[in-house]
Order: sequence, then C-alpha cells, then structure tokens
Amino acid sequence: MNLERLTADLQGLLEPEDVLTAQEDLASYDAPARYEAGRAAAVVRPRTVDGVSKVMGYCVSRGVRLVPQGANTGLVAGSTADGSGTQVVLSLERLRTPLRVDPANRTARVGAGVRLSALNQALEPHGLFLPIDLGADPTLGGMAATNTGGARFIRYGDMRRHVLGLQVVLPDRQGSVVELKGGLRKDNTGLDLRQLFVGSCGALGVITEVEVEVHPRPRQTAAALIALANPDAALPLLQFMEREAGELLTAFEGMSRAAFAAALAHAPALRNPFPGGPPPYAVLVELSTARSPQGGDAPLGQVLEAILAAWLETAEADAIDVLVGAPEPLWAIRHAISEGLRAKGQVIGFDLAFRRSDLPAFRDAALDRLGRQFPAVEICDFGHIGDGGVHFNLVAPRPGLPDAGLKALRTCVYELAVGQFGGSFSGEHGLGRANLESYRAYTPDLVRELAGGVQNVFSEAPIGAVDFVGLFREQA
Amino acid sequence: MNLERLTADLQGLLEPEDVLTAQEDLASYDAPARYEAGRAAAVVRPRTVDGVSKVMGYCVSRGVRLVPQGANTGLVAGSTADGSGTQVVLSLERLRTPLRVDPANRTARVGAGVRLSALNQALEPHGLFLPIDLGADPTLGGMAATNTGGARFIRYGDMRRHVLGLQVVLPDRQGSVVELKGGLRKDNTGLDLRQLFVGSCGALGVITEVEVEVHPRPRQTAAALIALANPDAALPLLQFMEREAGELLTAFEGMSRAAFAAALAHAPALRNPFPGGPPPYAVLVELSTARSPQGGDAPLGQVLEAILAAWLETAEADAIDVLVGAPEPLWAIRHAISEGLRAKGQVIGFDLAFRRSDLPAFRDAALDRLGRQFPAVEICDFGHIGDGGVHFNLVAPRPGLPDAGLKALRTCVYELAVGQFGGSFSGEHGLGRANLESYRAYTPDLVRELAGGVQNVFSEAPIGAVDFVGLFREQA
Repeated sequence: MNLERLTADLQGLLEPEDVLTAQEDLASYDAPARYEAGRAAAVVRPRTVDGVSKVMGYCVSRGVRLVPQGANTGLVAGSTADGSGTQVVLSLERLRTPLRVDPANRTARVGAGVRLSALNQALEPHGLFLPIDLGADPTLGGMAATNTGGARFIRYGDMRRHVLGLQVVLPDRQGSVVELKGGLRKDNTGLDLRQLFVGSCGALGVITEVEVEVHPRPRQTAAALIALANPDAALPLLQFMEREAGELLTAFEGMSRAAFAAALAHAPALRNPFPGGPPPYAVLVELSTARSPQGGDAPLGQVLEAILAAWLETAEADAIDVLVGAPEPLWAIRHAISEGLRAKGQVIGFDLAFRRSDLPAFRDAALDRLGRQFPAVEICDFGHIGDGGVHFNLVAPRPGLPDAGLKALRTCVYELAVGQFGGSFSGEHGLGRANLESYRAYTPDLVRELAGGVQNVFSEAPIGAVDFVGLFREQA
Repeated sequence: MNLERLTADLQGLLEPEDVLTAQEDLASYDAPARYEAGRAAAVVRPRTVDGVSKVMGYCVSRGVRLVPQGANTGLVAGSTADGSGTQVVLSLERLRTPLRVDPANRTARVGAGVRLSALNQALEPHGLFLPIDLGADPTLGGMAATNTGGARFIRYGDMRRHVLGLQVVLPDRQGSVVELKGGLRKDNTGLDLRQLFVGSCGALGVITEVEVEVHPRPRQTAAALIALANPDAALPLLQFMEREAGELLTAFEGMSRAAFAAALAHAPALRNPFPGGPPPYAVLVELSTARSPQGGDAPLGQVLEAILAAWLETAEADAIDVLVGAPEPLWAIRHAISEGLRAKGQVIGFDLAFRRSDLPAFRDAALDRLGRQFPAVEICDFGHIGDGGVHFNLVAPRPGLPDAGLKALRTCVYELAVGQFGGSFSGEHGLGRANLESYRAYTPDLVRELAGGVQNVFSEAPIGAVDFVGLFREQA
C-alpha cells in the first residue's frame, strides 16, 4: 500500500499529529532496548480506545501489518517493526487514562500506556504497590501482553497472577472492543479468555486497559549476600530459607563467579564484599514484610541473621561467608551484572527456566558441554533461581562469534536446556520474533495447531496481513 | 445407541469390571453433594490415561455423551449425568498415579483421581501442603477443572495459581493426549493453553494429570472472632488487617447475624462466644506463618491481639467484642453455617463475588429489595469477604417456595448482583448445568461467541454429541 495514502487515511481516522512518518520521529519507536533496530512505515499513537479500534479495523480491512508497542522495553523483538519498512507501529503510550485506585478492593485500573512507575506513584499514598520488580519501566499493557516476571516472583508471582481484568481490541474489521472480566478476584463463570491475552504478545488483540490486584507495601526489608563454596549448595539453601523464612522470602537470586566478578569490575563504586574475591557462587536473599516493627519484635535483619546462623549449623551449609546488610548495595551488585557482561565482550543471552531441582544438573552438563565445544566462550550465569529462572548468559571475546558459530551455540544450549532438561527457552521475556524459531522447534505440533486455531477465533485478519496476528498461525 | 452394545464396546476397550451399569453401582456416581441426582447410562472408570483416551475417542466417534467426574463433590451439576439416562459418566477416580513430590522444586505431580487429602498426606513429611482449603475432599483433576477457591484464597489464591502443568485428553476421534506445560514456574513461550482448561469444567477436554506448586506448611496459626456492631465496619477492618498483618493474613470471613445464629442453633456443642448473643455481623480473622517461633518473638496469638488492640483505638472500629482464641473452635462456628441453614428451611444458595468495595452497598440494596419483594425469605449471608466472595444464602420457611417464586427470587438476586453491581454469579463453584442459564444471560454475546469458537478448536465432537463439550457452543 502506498505510504502517503496510508498516512492520510490514518490521519483522517485520528488527528494528523497522531501519525508519525518522519525518520527522526520514528527513531525511538524503531530502536529497542537490546536488539537490532527495526524500520516502521509509520507510527500511530491513538489517545483513546476508540482510536485504537478505528486503526485496528482499518488495518485489518486493508491488510496493513500492525505491531503494537508499549514502552518498547522488551528484549525479544516483540514490539518493534521488522526491517521491511512496511509495518505500522501501534503505540499505546498515550492511553494513560484511567489511572484509578480502589484501595478497599486493593486494585487499580489503568490505561495500557500507564507506566509501572506512574502506577506505583499513584499507589504509594495508599500504602500499596504492584510487586512486579523489573529493570525497566514498562507500560502496564506491555506487562500484561508479555506476562512479565521479575525478581520478586518467588513471593508475588508474575503479571498473570495480578491481572483481574482487561479491555482488548480484537483484530477484526470492526476493531471490536471487549471487556474480559472486571475487578473481581473470584469469577468462575466460563472460559477465562483473559488468560489467553496475558503473555500472548498481542497475537490475539491489543490490550487497552488493565485492572490489577496490588499489595501492601513492605515496611521492612532485609537482605543478605551468601558466598558459597559450591554452586550446588544453593538449592539446599533455598529449601532451608523457604522452610524457615516462609512467607517473608521475597527474592532468591543466584550469581556465578564470572557474573559476580563482571559486575564488580564494571562498576568500580561497588566494593567487593568478600575479602577472598568473588566466590564460586553467590546468593542474594531478601526478606520483606508489610508489618511495621512492633515493640518486642526483632528487626527483620536480625531475623535473617538468626535464620542464616541456624543454616550455618546444618551439614549442607557449604558457605565461605555470609553478609547481612542493607538491601540496596547488595542489589546494586546483582543489577550491575548485565552491564558488566556487555563490557566484557559479546553477550549471548538466554532466558532459561527449569524445575528448580534440575538447576544443578543442567549447570554441570552445560559447563561440560560448552567447555568442550565452545572453549572460548565464558559462562556467566545468574538469575532468579528461586523460581527456576536462569539468565544463562555467555560472553564471547570481541569481536564475537561469527553467525554460524552463534547459531551452533544457541542450538547447543537450547537442545540441552529444552530438549534434554525440559526447560523453557523463554522463562520471562516472552515470544517475539527473536524466539519464533525456538517456538517452532520446541512446541509439539498439536499444541501449535491448537494455538493457531485459537488465534483464528480472535482474528479476522488473513495470515501475515497483520504481523503480530500471524504469530501462532503458520502457512499450511 | 443401544445400551448393551455401548456397554460391550466400552468393556472391550477397557476391562469388563471398569464399566458399571447396575443401578446399585451407579447410585453414588449419580448422587451429587447438594443437588438433584442424575441418571447415567453407565459409568466408565479407566485406570490409565490410555484408557481415558480410548473411551474418549470411541465416544466422540459414536456421538455418545460423556460427563467427566472426579470426587463428585461439586455444587453446580457439573459432574453428574442429566436425567435422560443416555449420558456416560467418565469417572477419573482411578487415576491415582503418579503421586510424586519434588521437594526441591516445591511441586507435586498427581493423577487426576488423587484426592486433596491424599496429596496433603504425601506432602506432610516434606513440610509442604497445597493451601486450597475446602469443605470437601475433591480430586486434583476436579479442582483444576473447576478452579476451586476456598477459605485461604486471600493469601494463597485459587487453583489456577497453583497449576504448573496439565495432561489432558482432547474430545477428538483419537482421544489425543496433550501435555500442557511441565513443572516450570516460568515458561513464557506462547499461548498458555493450560489456563483454558483450568475452570473449564471439562468443556475442552478431560484432565488426566495435574502438576501443582505447593507451599511450606504453617507452623503457627492464630485466629480471632470479632463481633461488629455494624456490618459496614467489616471492610475498614479488612483494610486495617491487610496493612498491619500483611503477609500473615490467611483468612477473613464474614458472617451475618442470621448465619451465625443458625450455626449455633444447629450445633449445640458450639458455645456462643459472645455473651450478648449473635452480633449484627461477625468476622473471623486468621493469621498464619510458616516460621517457627524464635526466641524473643511474640507468639502469633499475641501479634494478632496487638493488631486488634491497635484497631480498637481507631475511629472506624465499631466493635462489640473481640475474641482471640484457638482457631479450631472459631472455624467450627463458620463451618457449621451451611448445615445450620439447611436445618432452618429451604436454602436458596448463591455463590456471588464482588469488588470488595461494593460489598456494603450490595448488601444494603439486597436487604432492601428482598425485604420488600420476598418478605418471608431470610437473608443468611456469609463468606470469604476478604476476596469479595459472598455465599449469599437465603432461607425460605418450609415447605419452601414454589418453582415460580424460586425463579423470581433468583432473577431478582442475579439482576442486582450481576446486572447492577457487576458481580459474579459463580465466584468459586464454577459453571455446570446449574449456571448455564446465568452464563447465557450475563455473558456478552461476543465473549460467548469467542468461547464457543475456542471450544470448537479443541473438540471434534458435534454440538450436543458429547455433553460437556457443548457447554460453550450454542446451536445457531
């Protein structure tokens, strides 16, 4: 379709300034956080659900390929146009109303374009927060569409667990607007279609409003960094913490020696907390509670100290050092890992997840296999091991691996992680173009057929006509 | 189809003793917990997934109408045959393997026929439990298929939150067996079809294995019964408890004066804890923690006392009496309500759910409207108000209302609860024949169309041919 005609039509549906086509205006919509930039034909930014509906109906009718985008903070090429220059980015960033807190229901309803930080700001006066903890500041629509997880998953779960209601616009010729459940915690009245949209990356339609359950803000937080002599000691420590800290446990993060060292090397302001240097494996544990300290109660830091002291008495405790301290400096080390790895060389990232019980065996097998097949590549794994998530990131010395080597490396890791250990090739980042190949390789045929069939139910667009709509459908 | 032929065919597919047709053998499968008995043509009880698959393929091919059944503890006519005598009950009760606990992953994988009590028994040595707390002892397959909630929902959520994996048999001619996700907490790799099966009442297929996340068992529990001068004081108390008890809060149950009085009257062993008689409204609060009491920590009962003492200082506290005590006797009152109401007269039960913020206004409106239109009927509401759930049960003096009156009463309550207040007509009991009329009345046309379309994707059976399969599909 002619770009001028398309632009004029979209401007006619909305306001002229709602449609961007100038190269400099498109740049930020084309440039994602950590992967290659795309090239959109245009960006449309409706201000209302009605505007989204009009754009959707038009694009479906004309076969214009749409890519929905929130804050463009995703990591799997799910929110940017491909390189063809023919797709239109549908930005939801201007859907910033409603932003309505219902403190008695402990919920909030927001437009899809509301940012996590803006929601938490609105929740703060009520002593509430949305406990999805991420490195980025995504929109709530994007969080629902990709089912974000994060560092406090072990206590609070993923976005799915918090979504009580959605408003969506379907990819049909009318751009039908559908409400899927309201602000009810309990509503067991048929197929829960809302669940399909959570984590579907826009493949079934575009989320325009989100209602979430929120939680009392923690009033006390305590953290500890534990240096383990042996990575295998992490799992028994996790079980001990769950048993003894119970509902207080809010994070359990693992860091390999290489990841830990990279963080410290990259951020000189971070002091190495362990005199002997980065340990073979480190665990960051966080406890938190919404309760304020009562007279007579031990402060949370003392509680954590007592639990760890008891753990040190056990036979399984293979510890070099235990450091209970203020959470921020300890998290700073954990958060510096990603940048630290990028400073080291070419990062080949994997967002894997496993049964927790499989973590040690997978790690051993991966070290062995990669050490033999890819000796130049350093394994710098870290992650939310309390929920089985591993950012199994590898670093190749610059200039990095050639494409064929990269492909062989990816295949090797996925074969081991997914094929042999039954793990996930995308624990929390979602699908998107980056993971389509893995989706096809590791999803059983029948499941893919069912997913494609379900997508057909929601979409009138022909396969490939609306890009994200083609995600689960395959040409025969 | 000829019953003898059907029986012979089914016996040929399984073992002869796996198929029941004698009236006395069918009785317990036909008689549900609390509604009218059905009449099955036969009951098949496969011992393996392979057996389920064979039965399914046969029945879909021949148009035999199947009704899946777990422990038959449901309340909405979802697990029994209708009165036609032509449907076959597919009992999953013999699928009692696997029963496998993975303590390091904090999960368990079980056959659909494993009972909740059996699972918890297997979990106990590991200090774990499945925290779905119900009056009945259902099978895990039934719990997943109906997405059970229960009394500890406010802390632990519903069954959906715990299902990490399902094995299902689809209603197609092959009786296809599909694995939907494994024991992973994080697996963001496409449409989460597993979610569709949770709460679908068998409409998309039969669940044969379930994998659930489980939790550390509480080591301390404390409870209090609070007599309120005014039902409207319950909501501010709930907010206060969430703020001050935070993650310790595991139950927040409300009881109207009539419900409370009925429980005491029916169970003479229960002492009335309040000298002034049943209060206008009573709240049962429970705290629990997986932590064992540490030296210096206040016992949980004292924590609860301190929180309630602080609440009594607030302006909102409209309390007659506060009683902190052992949990069991206090729960005994709450659990005696259902029987107590049945002893009083004809119970017309409603399993409603609301935004918590709507609870007071709904209650006022219902009291007003029913008081005028149905003066003989007594409102004996109680429920899990911490999550917005209300067992809005009404009692009519014996011999009870005539059918027309019953219908008018139901319509009146649903119009108010669902039509006006946006509540749910089935908060936790699920669909089933009992709620099909409400499903049609209160589900938007487009949502019903989408649900029917989704069901078509999973089923090859013609509409009406396999009974549960027709649930969301409607004749044009």
